[in-house]
Amino acid sequence: MIPWNKVAIVGVGLIGGSIGLALLRRNLAREVVGIGRSEANLQLARQRGALTATAQSIEAAVAGASLIIVCTPVAQIARDVQRVAQHCTADALITDAGSTKLEIVQQIGRSAAASRWPAGVRFVGGHPLAGSEKRGAAHASADLFVDRTVIVTPVEETGAADVATLRDFWSALGARVVEMSPAQHDQVLARTSHLPHVVAAALAGATPVESLPYTAGGWQDTTRIAGGDIELWRQILLSNRANVLGAIDHFSDRLGQLRSALDRAESAQLEKLLGEARQVRNALGS
Amino acid sequence: MIPWNKVAIVGVGLIGGSIGLALLRRNLAREVVGIGRSEANLQLARQRGALTATAQSIEAAVAGASLIIVCTPVAQIARDVQRVAQHCTADALITDAGSTKLEIVQQIGRSAAASRWPAGVRFVGGHPLAGSEKRGAAHASADLFVDRTVIVTPVEETGAADVATLRDFWSALGARVVEMSPAQHDQVLARTSHLPHVVAAALAGATPVESLPYTAGGWQDTTRIAGGDIELWRQILLSNRANVLGAIDHFSDRLGQLRSALDRAESAQLEKLLGEARQVRNALGS
Repeated sequence: MIPWNKVAIVGVGLIGGSIGLALLRRNLAREVVGIGRSEANLQLARQRGALTATAQSIEAAVAGASLIIVCTPVAQIARDVQRVAQHCTADALITDAGSTKLEIVQQIGRSAAASRWPAGVRFVGGHPLAGSEKRGAAHASADLFVDRTVIVTPVEETGAADVATLRDFWSALGARVVEMSPAQHDQVLARTSHLPHVVAAALAGATPVESLPYTAGGWQDTTRIAGGDIELWRQILLSNRANVLGAIDHFSDRLGQLRSALDRAESAQLEKLLGEARQVRNALGS
Repeated sequence: MIPWNKVAIVGVGLIGGSIGLALLRRNLAREVVGIGRSEANLQLARQRGALTATAQSIEAAVAGASLIIVCTPVAQIARDVQRVAQHCTADALITDAGSTKLEIVQQIGRSAAASRWPAGVRFVGGHPLAGSEKRGAAHASADLFVDRTVIVTPVEETGAADVATLRDFWSALGARVVEMSPAQHDQVLARTSHLPHVVAAALAGATPVESLPYTAGGWQDTTRIAGGDIELWRQILLSNRANVLGAIDHFSDRLGQLRSALDRAESAQLEKLLGEARQVRNALGS
């Protein structure tokens, strides 16, 4: 499979653009064709070396591509995969880069069953844990996936060869690849990614603007992701609603324990809770 | 006053060490004498150029110093200022770098009234907003205060000349200086500094260790300060208890609004709340 003859990227933003840059800089693909809503962004991606060509239609983009990566916003992925599947070459493998998985994978499974995809066309979900509050091909980087984790989410019908193909693909871009079911992915990411966003938004939103001159590194780090794209995050949160609600409640319990220890001036308990947090944080490093 | 003839620093950690380094690198003081619990740390500070001499006793440290800066942990500051005041030269000005102010300033006011300080010795509280999760003279930097805010907290009896002296002092180190009452300081900092620490600790503490491989930049930024020193933060939170409890409740209200919008799948409300957070965050920059 490697080097790929032709890879198509649908949605050439930070993630899609970084995939293209990494593929071409590392000589992993002969042709990388991109398609997206903004012509200016596509041209920028091409100028930056993230694409060898841009396409005006899905048909042209996916024709002859053996791998298609859908990198559009979460609420759009299932529809885009369905459009891609209608037009792509027999035996093409489609994947995505969405931050949630269960709803997307289920929707795609239902459309595939309802509309009969071309022979041998398959979809396997994926999620590179390599976001940023920055957006667009302008911020794409060939090294975005180096030492990052990519979660591939096979379902019962997924063939082992397709999982192996995606493992090879992401590994070649420098990432570590792990497998999870779509449901497990959404449970884990609710706590490690979606909850932090909600918490950062609550913290930023609870800060009076007139107090901003009295913030320092702590507030700035803790709220950084609240500066991220609203529409993107609204879609992610709604798409993983039940898990995120559970994660908020779990977090609130923990906050309640800290509040109670402080309220009662229980010095030892406060120390214990701060110590447990520090231990988790330091288990990760930097 | 500038250059200072002799400045004494009590507690030569990240803040105290950085003050010493900045004073000496900028030729703002002829002599900077440090005193602290750890002889190894004091020697390191001296080797790094943060001190011209180390002292074995408070008496020796403060003799002849016209400015003494107490940079010990919050729970210790009032006692250390009292010890300094007993031994320092007539007309010396004492300040501190503690992260909370009202309790400290009140305790010092009571000790001063009870024990009669030497003629002309005064204390005015201060707080440079330039912390870090790093500690010790090893991490001290001559530029730690450049473009940072220092809050000086005069009380009714404070003379304008002393406020001016502290303004000059911190400005010479590159900082912006603002004045607030100790009570106002503690209210504002509860929201901009102490609350973020509690929130980061709750978030880190709510994360299962086995999920850490699935965190990315968002979780890492949002929890960074939870890796900070436990004892230091326990003291800060307890010293500003009522304000921090109020800030937690205000934050929880905001989190509850986000939770409710998500629970009801109120897309427009979710967008509004995320948008308000983004606006506050982006009003600050980086």
